[in-house]
Amino acid sequence: MGFVHEGHRQRVRFATGEATGQLAEEITALGVSRVMVIAADEEADLAREIAGALPVAAWHHDVAMHVPIEVAERARAVATGRHADAVVSVGGGSTTGLAKAVALTTGVPIVAVPTTYAGSEATNVWGLTEGAKKTTGVDERVLPRAIIYDAALTLSLPVDMSISSGLNALAHCIDSLWAPNANPINSALAEAGIRALNAGLPQVAADALAIPGRELSLQGTYLSAAAFSAAGSGLHHKICHVLGGMFNLAHAQTHAIVLPHVLAFNVSNAEEAQQRIARAFDSESAQTGLANLRRALDAPSALRDYGMPESGLAEAVDAIVAVAPASNPTPVTPEGIAALLRAAWEGDEPQ
Amino acid sequence: MGFVHEGHRQRVRFATGEATGQLAEEITALGVSRVMVIAADEEADLAREIAGALPVAAWHHDVAMHVPIEVAERARAVATGRHADAVVSVGGGSTTGLAKAVALTTGVPIVAVPTTYAGSEATNVWGLTEGAKKTTGVDERVLPRAIIYDAALTLSLPVDMSISSGLNALAHCIDSLWAPNANPINSALAEAGIRALNAGLPQVAADALAIPGRELSLQGTYLSAAAFSAAGSGLHHKICHVLGGMFNLAHAQTHAIVLPHVLAFNVSNAEEAQQRIARAFDSESAQTGLANLRRALDAPSALRDYGMPESGLAEAVDAIVAVAPASNPTPVTPEGIAALLRAAWEGDEPQ
Repeated sequence: MGFVHEGHRQRVRFATGEATGQLAEEITALGVSRVMVIAADEEADLAREIAGALPVAAWHHDVAMHVPIEVAERARAVATGRHADAVVSVGGGSTTGLAKAVALTTGVPIVAVPTTYAGSEATNVWGLTEGAKKTTGVDERVLPRAIIYDAALTLSLPVDMSISSGLNALAHCIDSLWAPNANPINSALAEAGIRALNAGLPQVAADALAIPGRELSLQGTYLSAAAFSAAGSGLHHKICHVLGGMFNLAHAQTHAIVLPHVLAFNVSNAEEAQQRIARAFDSESAQTGLANLRRALDAPSALRDYGMPESGLAEAVDAIVAVAPASNPTPVTPEGIAALLRAAWEGDEPQ
Repeated sequence: MGFVHEGHRQRVRFATGEATGQLAEEITALGVSRVMVIAADEEADLAREIAGALPVAAWHHDVAMHVPIEVAERARAVATGRHADAVVSVGGGSTTGLAKAVALTTGVPIVAVPTTYAGSEATNVWGLTEGAKKTTGVDERVLPRAIIYDAALTLSLPVDMSISSGLNALAHCIDSLWAPNANPINSALAEAGIRALNAGLPQVAADALAIPGRELSLQGTYLSAAAFSAAGSGLHHKICHVLGGMFNLAHAQTHAIVLPHVLAFNVSNAEEAQQRIARAFDSESAQTGLANLRRALDAPSALRDYGMPESGLAEAVDAIVAVAPASNPTPVTPEGIAALLRAAWEGDEPQ
């Protein structure tokens, strides 16, 4: 048993219905007086509602998926021009990502108010896209100083997006169990994350306004991101990264579809992960547990339904094999990945 | 669901047999050049073995239980006089505690190399004793920057002390589940800690030199301390603190004896904790799981065997009732605590 676990300094607040007051407390604690608030147009009203009483130096709504470099540069120019001394992000992964891009070059602290289950707020990982190329890195400056999880802010996230986003968080948990830096500390968090998501997501699917389900889903999101951030990308995330980049597929749906196939691919060579996953699902096996949850959620099941061309399968196989982690429990071969991708594309039962 | 979880920045290394090299890496990373090494006389040789190649400005072996203030002042004077820019502690809870006393006033970073299952290295809690009065506090400066867990260094810890110390760590896990700041993040760590200790301690009991058992016990120790540090003292720790202070009882043994009685006292009013504990023990109930482990370890069971006078019971009841946490799941009454203490004193079955 040899591993290194890195703990991070971050305050995590769970407080349903209290985002406004909690955010004010964090801004006061930071001692800042020129806040830049970043929120996409869809969340602009929400951001004004919860951050309106803060000393705001700039409202910024110029947000785009995958944080294109020119979007980042514009936000950085605003931060510098307005002498912002803190950034508050209100939104999903793209919004948090833009706040991180600002923090990366300016060093200003972030307070994150997430409205989806993306999880970026709990990691020190940043990402920027230049043309078709996404660059990621790790830097302590981009880790938000505080997170405010207010389940009431997630009620407007539609059920289908909640499910996909939640299954994306679930993928963080499961993939972290065999990722390159998997360790028993992270794995404990991942196990708890699976348990919370398995309890919370079906409640959200049944009733988008169910607060307890939303709370459990956010709790699972935090745990998933904390576990995954330290463990690094496993095979599942490498596959989704390749597919997303090649075919511009929707992020969360791609994860939701691919996950059971990677689990099936790895599970027979990863007994400890199998036990953890089964236990977290309260199921006799990891695969049964995931299948039951996916059935309860009516989860997406075929890449062909989400814009992936059949003609791209062969090219994707080569790209995936080239980046697959050496630590993957089942050896990665072109044949194995071809079968996995074909099944995910068709929507077949995982083998 | 409302709670605040504080994450801490700390690097945690698990590396059996590699303490020397890992310690050198941490000292290099800190960029320090005048290290004060603190180790009790019993660990002096060990400390020289693993820290001998570092730039040591002072070797300090003047260590005492509960960190008496005069011991702390002497260590601080050495640190200041020798211009120490880092402290390395090699030893158990008293040694780590002394390093914390130095860090508290000087601000120098600590690298901790634990040799027991005390867990102090994973917390930002310090303690000092002046006369009969122990003061504790919380300060980020006393949280070691890095921990090096090398199971090979714990092989010389005798089996009986290993068991008591390990059951003390187990008490951290269990008590954290109903402590004032219990939350789902800490509780996940606590659950994993119970699981690791339940797997590791019987291996140590069977063979003090069993490396896998020692590794699991250290892993459980880290998890227990991380969970407990954030959750605060529950009823169990309040009881043990009172008993230790009044009757000068051995710390670890007191915890080992009292724990099943507090579990019995609380469990019927703490269903979620009950489920977590049972699951972690792979047992049908929390109490059965703990009883099975205690039986396997031949754990101490009666306070009367460890120096507590029967005449002290009534006084202890009053003192405990006065400090019992309001958050305790079962309401704390003088009658309830009297029955609990009597059973722990006699070594009766927990009720």
